[in-house]
Amino acid sequence: MAFASVDDQLELLLRGVVDFHVEAELRQKLERSRQTDTPLRVKAGFDPTAPDLHLGHTVLLTKMRHFQDLGHQVVFLIGDFTGLIGDPTGRSATRKALTPAQIAANAETYKTQVFKILDPERTEVAFNSTWMNTLGAQGMIELAARYNVARMLERDDFKKRFHSGQSISVHEFLYPLVQGYDSVALRADVELGGTDQLFNLLVGRHMMKEYGLEPQCILTTPLLEGLDGRLEDGVLVGQKMSKSLDNYVGIDEPALEIFGKLMSVSDDLMWRYYQLLSTLAPARLAALEKDVRSGDAHPRDAKIGFATEIVARYHGDSAAAGASAEWQRIYSQGELPADMPELSIAADAEGAPLLNVLREAGLVASGGEARRMLAQGAVSVDGERIEDLEHRLAAGGDYVVKVGKRRYARIRVA
Amino acid sequence: MAFASVDDQLELLLRGVVDFHVEAELRQKLERSRQTDTPLRVKAGFDPTAPDLHLGHTVLLTKMRHFQDLGHQVVFLIGDFTGLIGDPTGRSATRKALTPAQIAANAETYKTQVFKILDPERTEVAFNSTWMNTLGAQGMIELAARYNVARMLERDDFKKRFHSGQSISVHEFLYPLVQGYDSVALRADVELGGTDQLFNLLVGRHMMKEYGLEPQCILTTPLLEGLDGRLEDGVLVGQKMSKSLDNYVGIDEPALEIFGKLMSVSDDLMWRYYQLLSTLAPARLAALEKDVRSGDAHPRDAKIGFATEIVARYHGDSAAAGASAEWQRIYSQGELPADMPELSIAADAEGAPLLNVLREAGLVASGGEARRMLAQGAVSVDGERIEDLEHRLAAGGDYVVKVGKRRYARIRVA
Repeated sequence: MAFASVDDQLELLLRGVVDFHVEAELRQKLERSRQTDTPLRVKAGFDPTAPDLHLGHTVLLTKMRHFQDLGHQVVFLIGDFTGLIGDPTGRSATRKALTPAQIAANAETYKTQVFKILDPERTEVAFNSTWMNTLGAQGMIELAARYNVARMLERDDFKKRFHSGQSISVHEFLYPLVQGYDSVALRADVELGGTDQLFNLLVGRHMMKEYGLEPQCILTTPLLEGLDGRLEDGVLVGQKMSKSLDNYVGIDEPALEIFGKLMSVSDDLMWRYYQLLSTLAPARLAALEKDVRSGDAHPRDAKIGFATEIVARYHGDSAAAGASAEWQRIYSQGELPADMPELSIAADAEGAPLLNVLREAGLVASGGEARRMLAQGAVSVDGERIEDLEHRLAAGGDYVVKVGKRRYARIRVA
Repeated sequence: MAFASVDDQLELLLRGVVDFHVEAELRQKLERSRQTDTPLRVKAGFDPTAPDLHLGHTVLLTKMRHFQDLGHQVVFLIGDFTGLIGDPTGRSATRKALTPAQIAANAETYKTQVFKILDPERTEVAFNSTWMNTLGAQGMIELAARYNVARMLERDDFKKRFHSGQSISVHEFLYPLVQGYDSVALRADVELGGTDQLFNLLVGRHMMKEYGLEPQCILTTPLLEGLDGRLEDGVLVGQKMSKSLDNYVGIDEPALEIFGKLMSVSDDLMWRYYQLLSTLAPARLAALEKDVRSGDAHPRDAKIGFATEIVARYHGDSAAAGASAEWQRIYSQGELPADMPELSIAADAEGAPLLNVLREAGLVASGGEARRMLAQGAVSVDGERIEDLEHRLAAGGDYVVKVGKRRYARIRVA
């Protein structure tokens, strides 16, 4: 294929990137790639643990996809060598050594998930045991000779632990070296990783020079803010997306669930998600933003476009169209307000009585008003009118409860 | 064989030892060894570099021999694994990687030398490549997990370099671990080494515990003072024996040379040498010392006894007897003074004219006196009368030159 201009490529590749070393080198690599019609080799490493990906994990994969969309080759590196070791000190129960069979099974699970984002035609799946198992103790020592202790102790976590007297095992110094050697073995042009990987990626640059190779360029991707992220004083604030904070979108969740969650985010967060998760070309994204800001397009439509792209990625185009239609049917009675109050309500096994919910959410002033509104048919749950005074909201669900024309609340029944 | 009592064994084993960990444990091992009639396994490691041993090196070997004399088994470990690596940074030209053929050749040279001290029947020669080559990168990492960085940085040389900003390569942390793992692989009961090895020997104790084994006991031997060592204010002072200081006795030197050098040391140094280099049983050594101190024996006879033991070790009993007789014939005219002046004189290919030597050494006041003394037969070199006015001392030799009855000088012709 004909590669796009270096500037055009960089526009997409650097979108949302946090750390970037070194621009002149990446320009040179891209230039040479065009001239020789040779794709860059873009490495990213993954633990061989059983994956259960949410959108936060996919920021990196999306960046890999950006490279692929521009014609480059991605190396999806599974760090099975270190996975086979686990925690040799036996101090961490959570880092058990994996068997080769477990690693193979995890790799398959991984592939089915990541190939929803990555283009299999431009992906090479590699395992670092391939070269690490033949390196030997001697090769390991020779590798360790290429890096020095003081510099290793500059890594943030090591520095903190060292100065606070917390133990660092010598083998922890070896893992970054192994990761760096992976780049040597793969002859990577670029390595991608999360911001927490910056130090290790730089070790890769160092090692490639040590072994007489042109050093890789490195790009890091940020942590993705969870669904509750919002703008405060012009700055996007919010904890990172995580399962334990329940502010995540799992890529295996049902289509409508993903769609609804993405529709619920603030407009500012939507643009952030576009930047990090969409594969939309820079020019098209810029045009869309311009239209929304000028009022020529409605933010909701931009959000629908984004939610559709993401659902299509994990469930296919037709499921995305279905989820979009279904969501719009549910909310056809009117646009949901941007700042609906949210409430979590405890329930027993039989759920929470709607009468109580209305009061607790402040949607009515009294039990009397609650009964009256229900009887009048002025109460709906998820767009469906409820007139039954005994109606209960089942536990474990999220509901949009509406009273009259304007009063809304998003209720989680726990 | 029946093992001697634990107390009797300890008396010899601890003679001259600097560091000793841990007495209670060594007693227990010795006790068990007696009860089960099983020799202890006593490890000492050696670099696979081409050896050219002097007596300083043999202090450790003599300690190994002490164990053998008590019935224990010595493991002479050649660190060929690390020798195969050399200096991976390429920064040290002196630490080139050795080939397996070089290592094998060096091992043979080593054996011919050390078996002049060690009992081959109670020596197992081992190479750590045996287990290190099968350990793999994974095993190396698991090994490194068993030790922590802060503790490693407590090693004196590391600490100094770290705090002065000198570079320490990560692989330097791995060598002590390899040495420790050798003890695991060999299941050593005891490890011996020079005082500079204390830290590494302690790593061996640590590693054996980590791998679920009873830890080895460790003993370190001191550096041997060179021939110029002497007592000052009750303390033996002197630089360590070394070739570059020319205060050494090489074990491959001619019998008479070794004999003469050992006869030249001060009485105090002689007792030090006895302690560290003789295999004489403690009771016999104690008796000898008592006799000399009480005047029942002459120090010169004790010195002859020691020199004879050492020459016999490296050249056999009859060469020792011959050297002793020859030395006594040469010096039969009188005991050599303890503080003979020493002088080094440059010579051309034909050597140094004796006439000049006499003057330069201050043995005569003038060229006239030199000629007169020669003509009178009052000059001898190494006990042999010289009357030839043209006599030259060949380059590369050491000579005792005597004029008249009392004037001596030790002349080195360089």
